[in-house]
Amino acid sequence: MSQTAKCWHFTQRPTGNVNADTFTLQDDPLPPLESGQILVRPVYVSMDPTNRVWLSDWENKYMDPVPLGAPMLGFTLGRIEASRHPEYPEGHLVTGLGPWAERYVLTPDEAWTLFPEMPADQLAEAFGILAIAGPTAIVGLLEIGQPEAGDTVLISAAAGAVGSVAGQIAKIHGCRVIGIAGGKEKCRSLIEDFGFDAAVDYKQGNLLADLRAQAPDGIDVLFENVGGDILDAGLSFMNNGGRVVICGLISSYSKPGSEPVPGPYNFAELIFKRLRMEGFVILDHLDRYPRFHEQLVGWMDAGRINFRLHTIQGIESAPEALAMLFTGSNTGKLMVQFSAP
Amino acid sequence: MSQTAKCWHFTQRPTGNVNADTFTLQDDPLPPLESGQILVRPVYVSMDPTNRVWLSDWENKYMDPVPLGAPMLGFTLGRIEASRHPEYPEGHLVTGLGPWAERYVLTPDEAWTLFPEMPADQLAEAFGILAIAGPTAIVGLLEIGQPEAGDTVLISAAAGAVGSVAGQIAKIHGCRVIGIAGGKEKCRSLIEDFGFDAAVDYKQGNLLADLRAQAPDGIDVLFENVGGDILDAGLSFMNNGGRVVICGLISSYSKPGSEPVPGPYNFAELIFKRLRMEGFVILDHLDRYPRFHEQLVGWMDAGRINFRLHTIQGIESAPEALAMLFTGSNTGKLMVQFSAP
Repeated sequence: MSQTAKCWHFTQRPTGNVNADTFTLQDDPLPPLESGQILVRPVYVSMDPTNRVWLSDWENKYMDPVPLGAPMLGFTLGRIEASRHPEYPEGHLVTGLGPWAERYVLTPDEAWTLFPEMPADQLAEAFGILAIAGPTAIVGLLEIGQPEAGDTVLISAAAGAVGSVAGQIAKIHGCRVIGIAGGKEKCRSLIEDFGFDAAVDYKQGNLLADLRAQAPDGIDVLFENVGGDILDAGLSFMNNGGRVVICGLISSYSKPGSEPVPGPYNFAELIFKRLRMEGFVILDHLDRYPRFHEQLVGWMDAGRINFRLHTIQGIESAPEALAMLFTGSNTGKLMVQFSAP
Repeated sequence: MSQTAKCWHFTQRPTGNVNADTFTLQDDPLPPLESGQILVRPVYVSMDPTNRVWLSDWENKYMDPVPLGAPMLGFTLGRIEASRHPEYPEGHLVTGLGPWAERYVLTPDEAWTLFPEMPADQLAEAFGILAIAGPTAIVGLLEIGQPEAGDTVLISAAAGAVGSVAGQIAKIHGCRVIGIAGGKEKCRSLIEDFGFDAAVDYKQGNLLADLRAQAPDGIDVLFENVGGDILDAGLSFMNNGGRVVICGLISSYSKPGSEPVPGPYNFAELIFKRLRMEGFVILDHLDRYPRFHEQLVGWMDAGRINFRLHTIQGIESAPEALAMLFTGSNTGKLMVQFSAP
């Protein structure tokens, strides 16, 4: 084993999307394992919109931002290559929030959980659903959105990892599900791959009219991943007493820091339509992952949840991969494969 | 009894605040009473920010807007001058939503409720608290805001009718209560008349710094009556899991219709701070008024709720009175006295 490992460090704060200067690949020394520590080799690192938030200099965010100069972080499925911790044995798979690195030494806390062994071709999908998208969809859609059978559910960024799972869970609960996505292929996928009832292509430029046509009875639950004009369009059609799940606001994450991003112009609908709007952070719910996993595995085994992966190869590609999220050029749950399982 | 009655009609849609052209005082014919009808003579008509919403041409609002040409409406305490309805006897006081008129004939529905007789000098205060401000404060603060003892509660437009009652109810529930108001006199009143723990004068121009100083442990419940910069300031200091009660957004109600009003710039705090934000309309809760009145009368009898009235005399003054709400020139719950009790 080499005594150093490549690691992406955060070296320049982006003013818009991440770019070639945002991160720098460095050789970091690998210290010897101390008691209670493990050596992790990342296999898959998930690329998520929330990663961009960690690069901002906004105050008081839900987790400490990544400091300039420090290793960039991501949700990781890794192999334990060496262990001096009894609960994390060598050779096992483990998930947690770790550096974009070839290898690293860490003292695992309870947020690092063992992951079941499975055939290599199922691993990325299981990680994608179980580690992030599935729990996020469950907490957001079911616990905050509280859909009832017969409700109309609108999901933005519906072809994304979280959106596509949330839509399928809403279908399982007997809802009419409408997805907003960009482009014909994503909209086809919503209907054919994920079983949505309707898809609206915001790139067609008729968002309000198309939504009105697809939601003639209004919207009861809005599962929002985007913000901006997309959120405003959804708010226009909410029914009285509707629930608005603020899962993500990807349209605002990579705006230049000096440019204030206004909230939705239809904000007063909160009063007029008696809406409840609530945000959440999935990191708050890690202690309930075992229950979420039981639910998700049940649905997956019954063939009720499909998932699309978009895997990019190699640690060198991580910055470009992250940038893809903000141009909408990924076609499924985006992951970078750092090494073979 | 004359066969006509003066009545303010809505004759020109305002683009900003209401003005001299918004309403026209007309002589309307008074039809004879039919079976099931009553003749009402308004005594007090309440002036409320929500009245301005009814004059907009926005679609899909929580009640039908007042059509151009139709009588303007307001929450009213009136005397039943004649009755052909067994449950609304002649001579009794009654409250409901009625025209800005000297007299009118109506077929009362369950939203018209009898009001207890009391000495003339107590009537306006009881009407102000029981008909609107008290129930609004209870539903917003207690049911949506769900404050716990020791929480910090921030209230905007705190010297207004709803804000001052909400603050006093928060004190009854053991909270630290901070009010935002405009001007030294209003801020003095928050502390001395209403028992707030702290008052912040937004007209001093140091809103963020002053709030930071008064809420060193952050804000758990934000009771919002204003919107715009005031809401953004409050959102800056929310604690994780905080509740934001959207009771009113008076700063946006009289913006010209052609000028879109952005939502709060700190909207993403919903995610970062896991906030729940909820709007409501007190008209939805009329069926629970008896229970609210019991609570409120208990607090009033125990001397735990103070109230400031600002009464304007005469039906002719109603339009000018309504305009005062949007310049902040009233110094208490604003009512127009149309006639002697």
